[in-house]
Amino acid sequence: METVTSELQIDTRLVHKILVEFLRQEIGKVGMQRAVVNLSGGIDSALSCYLAVEALGAQNVLAIRLPYRTSSPDSLTDAQLVIDALGMPGATIDITPMVEPLFERFPDMNQNRRGNVMARARMIVLYDQSAVWNGLPVGTSNKTELLLGYGTVFGDMASAVNPLGDLYKTQIRQLAAAVGMPQPILDKPPSADLWVGQTDEGEMGVTYEEVDRLLYLLVDERYSLDEAVEAGFAREYVERVWKMVRVNSFKRRLPLIAKVSTRTIGVDFRYLRDWGV
Amino acid sequence: METVTSELQIDTRLVHKILVEFLRQEIGKVGMQRAVVNLSGGIDSALSCYLAVEALGAQNVLAIRLPYRTSSPDSLTDAQLVIDALGMPGATIDITPMVEPLFERFPDMNQNRRGNVMARARMIVLYDQSAVWNGLPVGTSNKTELLLGYGTVFGDMASAVNPLGDLYKTQIRQLAAAVGMPQPILDKPPSADLWVGQTDEGEMGVTYEEVDRLLYLLVDERYSLDEAVEAGFAREYVERVWKMVRVNSFKRRLPLIAKVSTRTIGVDFRYLRDWGV
Repeated sequence: METVTSELQIDTRLVHKILVEFLRQEIGKVGMQRAVVNLSGGIDSALSCYLAVEALGAQNVLAIRLPYRTSSPDSLTDAQLVIDALGMPGATIDITPMVEPLFERFPDMNQNRRGNVMARARMIVLYDQSAVWNGLPVGTSNKTELLLGYGTVFGDMASAVNPLGDLYKTQIRQLAAAVGMPQPILDKPPSADLWVGQTDEGEMGVTYEEVDRLLYLLVDERYSLDEAVEAGFAREYVERVWKMVRVNSFKRRLPLIAKVSTRTIGVDFRYLRDWGV
Repeated sequence: METVTSELQIDTRLVHKILVEFLRQEIGKVGMQRAVVNLSGGIDSALSCYLAVEALGAQNVLAIRLPYRTSSPDSLTDAQLVIDALGMPGATIDITPMVEPLFERFPDMNQNRRGNVMARARMIVLYDQSAVWNGLPVGTSNKTELLLGYGTVFGDMASAVNPLGDLYKTQIRQLAAAVGMPQPILDKPPSADLWVGQTDEGEMGVTYEEVDRLLYLLVDERYSLDEAVEAGFAREYVERVWKMVRVNSFKRRLPLIAKVSTRTIGVDFRYLRDWGV
């Protein structure tokens, strides 16, 4: 385990309790008792499984593995560790036949486009299986990814309820260790596994430990960029990270609707599910 | 043309001007000059094309036709009328090869599930082409559909900017007539064309003319259900429509994130693109 600065240290028992209760309440509010999770074999989706199983019971949470032809075999075996540890039902649906036709039609498609297509094909299957299973799709995006925009909008970022979205990656690791997640999942380098050799930190050019500390200061403590530099971060780094947060803000909002009436969806008309159904 | 009650009558010249300016400004704000539209051949997506072409110029808006094996041939020819009338570039990408593998794997998949898979496959291609074209995906969901939840979340409801989301269907028709849209598109019964014989009004069991009047009272005028009944709508109808609005509220919100920090995405942290990039 890496060291975590005290600001990022969480009370794992309390946070665990809050998140389990959140899932139980929000899923219950819409009249459901079940959930589906896209279980990649990484730490985030594994944690979502742990929390959902605690909230709803293992028999009510379906873990879906959605490999692509080139996905790492370790992803499947690591996912199986979670399924076995929790005693939950699992399903495996290969997305290769869905995405290859588009890849073949556009053979010059770069890695980034291919990754987005794959993430969205996984969303399609996750949501389709949620209809069969009659369970709510539980999200797996953490706060670091959401802020940096390291994910696919309408793909892995799509869910109904997300217990992880307010936890930085380094905090996810604390909670994952506390729930007793299998060691191989805790130890492996984070990767979206969209192409061979991809790692989060390599692709973004940051380490989670450093970027989480910076994001905490900028977002949670409302530091200005200058204050973050005074706190010891290189100016170039601060500016690069903040630019990532800014240019990806579109991934964290609803489609923008032109306002022409007195009560516009997403602006004046925002009833929540707390209405009840 | 059907009759429209005076409350739903819009000043088409003013609304047209607002929506064109909205697209020009919002697309410009993120540093882009181009747009992509999923042109189905229906009135909504045709209107989005008209507005986007007015805002950005015909050469900057790509109309993408995304037929499925069983899509009506009329959809393609009606879409071509729009492409020809506006002199804009068009592309046609068949989604059949992407969705058939999932349909074959789950042969008992009902129409509703199949429709959602198709709507989301179209989103995948639209977003992928937006990356190639370097243009923002312009939405095509109107206020009636968004309120009644008559659409697929992360499918046809996905876009970056939506000029139509604050206009009821009967108002879309007024604006479409005002911009001089080809008559066949104005005249045909609204349909998602996800399966043969599907029509919006048949599937939902409402007419747009009646439901728009009711939604206007409930949403824009903030009538209670009792007041809507007093205004002349059958109680059973009012309750059925309002239930559609309520149970589909999840389609109009972001994934719900469990709050555990002082500044949570979507709650306390909601910077818009007005930041600039």
